[in-house]
Amino acid sequence: MKNIKLTISYDGTKYLGWQRLLGENRKRSIQGILEDALKQIFGQEILLIGSGRTDAGVHARGQVANFHMPSAFLRFVENRYTKGSLEQNIRRACNEILPEDICIRQVQLVPKEFHSRYSATAKTYEYIIDVREVQQVFLRKHALWIGSKLNMEQMKKAAALFIGEKDFRAFSTRDPGGKQKNTVRTIYSIELEEQNNLLYIRIRGNGFLYNMVRILVGTLIEVGTGQKSLKEVQRAIETGERKYAGYTASSVGLYLKKVEYGNS
Amino acid sequence: MKNIKLTISYDGTKYLGWQRLLGENRKRSIQGILEDALKQIFGQEILLIGSGRTDAGVHARGQVANFHMPSAFLRFVENRYTKGSLEQNIRRACNEILPEDICIRQVQLVPKEFHSRYSATAKTYEYIIDVREVQQVFLRKHALWIGSKLNMEQMKKAAALFIGEKDFRAFSTRDPGGKQKNTVRTIYSIELEEQNNLLYIRIRGNGFLYNMVRILVGTLIEVGTGQKSLKEVQRAIETGERKYAGYTASSVGLYLKKVEYGNS
Repeated sequence: MKNIKLTISYDGTKYLGWQRLLGENRKRSIQGILEDALKQIFGQEILLIGSGRTDAGVHARGQVANFHMPSAFLRFVENRYTKGSLEQNIRRACNEILPEDICIRQVQLVPKEFHSRYSATAKTYEYIIDVREVQQVFLRKHALWIGSKLNMEQMKKAAALFIGEKDFRAFSTRDPGGKQKNTVRTIYSIELEEQNNLLYIRIRGNGFLYNMVRILVGTLIEVGTGQKSLKEVQRAIETGERKYAGYTASSVGLYLKKVEYGNS
Repeated sequence: MKNIKLTISYDGTKYLGWQRLLGENRKRSIQGILEDALKQIFGQEILLIGSGRTDAGVHARGQVANFHMPSAFLRFVENRYTKGSLEQNIRRACNEILPEDICIRQVQLVPKEFHSRYSATAKTYEYIIDVREVQQVFLRKHALWIGSKLNMEQMKKAAALFIGEKDFRAFSTRDPGGKQKNTVRTIYSIELEEQNNLLYIRIRGNGFLYNMVRILVGTLIEVGTGQKSLKEVQRAIETGERKYAGYTASSVGLYLKKVEYGNS
């Protein structure tokens, strides 16, 4: 039995999200498409374990998933290519089948106890905002266009309020399928960087509640446009009331950038 | 009579090119769509003069076009908005109507003798190549993915051969609608810059033959992968024979970046 870790990039624009769906919608879920590709390669149903779900429209540069594979099946891949490592060949076989908006960036053999979700120690999301006065047509599916100036200094001050272990209840939507009890999470860092008229907001934490990154970003945007004060942000954190936090920023600018696994 | 200059950005992915087409295909041409938007704003047929055509699939960050407008019609725009300059308001009115993949970046009032095509003194095209081993899913419509390493030093040497006033007959396709006689053009500069796994090739010249930029880029790519020698490139220039030049690189990575008008 081998445990195989995939690092995956996808353009979420036309998908309903990561999580496998039933029936016709299976083809509109990233997990469903990946599992179908693996089935085609290995000739057998494969269950993928993802590091976590991403919502409809959300992109990924570094989603992680793993699956367990009886060693015998690896011959399917070995027989297909005459050169390259097993890992390279699994990647090639997948990328030949996958649609052009989903791509395996890396394949690694990992210890049998590795679990994409439970072994994760940190996740980084990146949110991209097009801060030009006129929208960049090329980024319309991959960045949020605001059309108004943002006060970066104020946004950085607001971002600082989120750092550390806090109850982020005000910054989440009740998970439709969920029984979300513990709403305490730790945010390690929030970086704001402007480059070529794009504002990158990178949020690294030990985990995120449903819609949490999008609401944090929505709150930062409202601070940046002057619609929301730092006092209100503080109140949202202290009271845990959704109404004091900002809006839920669109999925268009959101990327799951990286999932970390201790030293692995 | 006012002469109005538009600077236009578009994602060429789903279009048949700049040039106005007849019938149903009118909506698949950038010029046709822009003229329809202007007609909607001004209530009258407008003929746009473009700086030149771009082919099917080619993008633009700085295409230029101009049109002449009886002053009376400008009231349509003035009545629509209560603030902002006339230029800003024409831009806003256009961008409200245009599809999300076409955008007016700038509107300027220019002297009545300004002509987008005849007044142009230089044009710059940019070609973007994704040089990652695995394709970036987000750039699949906006950069060419090669999947193999490119020798930048050799490419720079080949690029140097193109600089100056030369007969570029070998680097063009016979224009299907054209009677192209003079095939001498001047290339002022070719920049190759690699940044974040993207190779930008910027070619500035006084004008370009049909498919010339794509064939120059295809030739540089073949030099970069080692399929073509500098000697062959030199032979293509000297003989004017198409067979010695490289292939026609896909439109996916090509952008009309800038059109220059002397000091204007």
